[in-house]
Amino acid sequence: MRIDNLQYCNWSQTVFEQMHQGGLTGVHVTVAYHETFRETVANLEQWNRWFERFPELIFPGRTAADLKTAEATGRTAIFFGAQNPSPMEDDIGLVEILHQLGLRFMQLTYNNQSLLATGCYEEDDTGLTRMGRQVVTEMNRVGLVVDMSHSADRSTIEVADHSSRPIAITHANPGWWHAARRNKSDAVLDAVLGPKGDHGGMLGFSLYPHHLKGGTDCSRADFCEMIARTADKYGAHCLGIGSDLCQDQPDSIVEWMRVGRWTKEIDYGEGSASAPGFPPQPDWFRDNRDFPGLAEGLAAAGFDAGEVAGLMGGNWARFYETSFGPVDG
Amino acid sequence: MRIDNLQYCNWSQTVFEQMHQGGLTGVHVTVAYHETFRETVANLEQWNRWFERFPELIFPGRTAADLKTAEATGRTAIFFGAQNPSPMEDDIGLVEILHQLGLRFMQLTYNNQSLLATGCYEEDDTGLTRMGRQVVTEMNRVGLVVDMSHSADRSTIEVADHSSRPIAITHANPGWWHAARRNKSDAVLDAVLGPKGDHGGMLGFSLYPHHLKGGTDCSRADFCEMIARTADKYGAHCLGIGSDLCQDQPDSIVEWMRVGRWTKEIDYGEGSASAPGFPPQPDWFRDNRDFPGLAEGLAAAGFDAGEVAGLMGGNWARFYETSFGPVDG
Repeated sequence: MRIDNLQYCNWSQTVFEQMHQGGLTGVHVTVAYHETFRETVANLEQWNRWFERFPELIFPGRTAADLKTAEATGRTAIFFGAQNPSPMEDDIGLVEILHQLGLRFMQLTYNNQSLLATGCYEEDDTGLTRMGRQVVTEMNRVGLVVDMSHSADRSTIEVADHSSRPIAITHANPGWWHAARRNKSDAVLDAVLGPKGDHGGMLGFSLYPHHLKGGTDCSRADFCEMIARTADKYGAHCLGIGSDLCQDQPDSIVEWMRVGRWTKEIDYGEGSASAPGFPPQPDWFRDNRDFPGLAEGLAAAGFDAGEVAGLMGGNWARFYETSFGPVDG
Repeated sequence: MRIDNLQYCNWSQTVFEQMHQGGLTGVHVTVAYHETFRETVANLEQWNRWFERFPELIFPGRTAADLKTAEATGRTAIFFGAQNPSPMEDDIGLVEILHQLGLRFMQLTYNNQSLLATGCYEEDDTGLTRMGRQVVTEMNRVGLVVDMSHSADRSTIEVADHSSRPIAITHANPGWWHAARRNKSDAVLDAVLGPKGDHGGMLGFSLYPHHLKGGTDCSRADFCEMIARTADKYGAHCLGIGSDLCQDQPDSIVEWMRVGRWTKEIDYGEGSASAPGFPPQPDWFRDNRDFPGLAEGLAAAGFDAGEVAGLMGGNWARFYETSFGPVDG
């Protein structure tokens, strides 16, 4: 069972074949950064065409049971997520509609203030908004997971408190390891995972170079050592991978992620004017074929076989089981 | 097993309770007349709220198996349909998206020419368009039933030929009984049902007064006698009910149905300047509580118990079993 809980590749037969070669059971893929509802639906239409074209490699994932189907048939189940609430526009009724169309994760913010909460690039964090509280309750009802990867601290802590169900940070690393704007404070990790990892929430470790100590030059051993130290505090059971792999994407895509339609000026986000594009991946994690190596690194960092299996996918699978539908369904 | 394969009521707790009182297992409800995709989604959001509010009365129907659930739990399964292809706009990818959102029937036209085919109020019928052929093939693939109730003759006959799966006329009566524009010629019924009822297609008899001989004054015995004569030719197995019940709707709704946004002038459709509103229902079919009486009328017209059960719902149930998903699924 291998799950990568965040990717946004330039999808192709090659990428899907590499998922198969890397033994990926499930992948959570981003279907919207700044898209409206209708634009998100157009992205889902494109996914339907890929499902139709490559049925021997991928199929739509909706429930944890689809992971079993993926294992049994040697394919990869694709789970949808949005990195921004833009697909639901200003309409709480779209929460359930998006869930019916397969959305299983939704970030409440992408860097900026949204209608729901504050993003991690704003100067002031005013926490969960009035609409944000209503939407989190609705997401709890239908089984759409709240993802706070790109949100600010206060907003994240308030959501962890308000949400009746565990939430997730699908792709980030601890800030004590590498103090990037997108990495997470101890207070945020305590709120999401629980001070002893007892809140039911999940953290997916990111392999996006801006989130890594040393960036592109970060070693696999350093990365796995960081995971081991995180597990010392929270336990390994609430940790997984959310690689943030953006394989084969042109630099115009990272500009779209950062700039969307919210500014006429360039915003470099985690990059800079001198390095505006996607940073190169570490040489030990370039594509889905590198997942077996990651498992080796985790074993070398001291995790036992059960813990490695959990970190590589079992923990996300357990989270999926209780998160993707109504509580009583 | 009782199925009404077309209603567009002003939905309310009262109507849902009457479905229960009338023993309705399944109802195919219209969710769009002229609505765009986004407007149709807003209508589906409203249905989600009704499902949330009245779970003891109604739930979303997606497959024929939901009819069993409805029987087992004493509720009514609600199946969605569109009377116009407007919800798919000019985008063939929306066929599958709409199916994922629960759409199970879609008319290719509503009275006028559409992107796909010709409606029954146009002077010239040019048949299935280039896009129409592509869309019917896609509807066949995903399991979205082609409904030609409001289409013109040539278009209907061409679709019956082009479609790889049986199609339906969900709500109309034979033109030989009452020569209304919306009722169907022998040639159309032969094409959809097969000259001996052997094409797998279905006809749902309408109880909308403009489709009845004598209108509001049509007797139950006359209506059931017409069904018996239709069964003489095609057999009872391919016949059912599609009442077109528009209970509690204000007259502004029939104007929306006829006029939409396609004309600045009033079009009276089946009505007239002197009688522009909804016609009164016959006194023996005013709401869902009148279904048991209809069954009595069919028995009185000479149908045996098995035939009555089929006409009241079993025939639609069998059609649902083979129509609502991929052929191999």
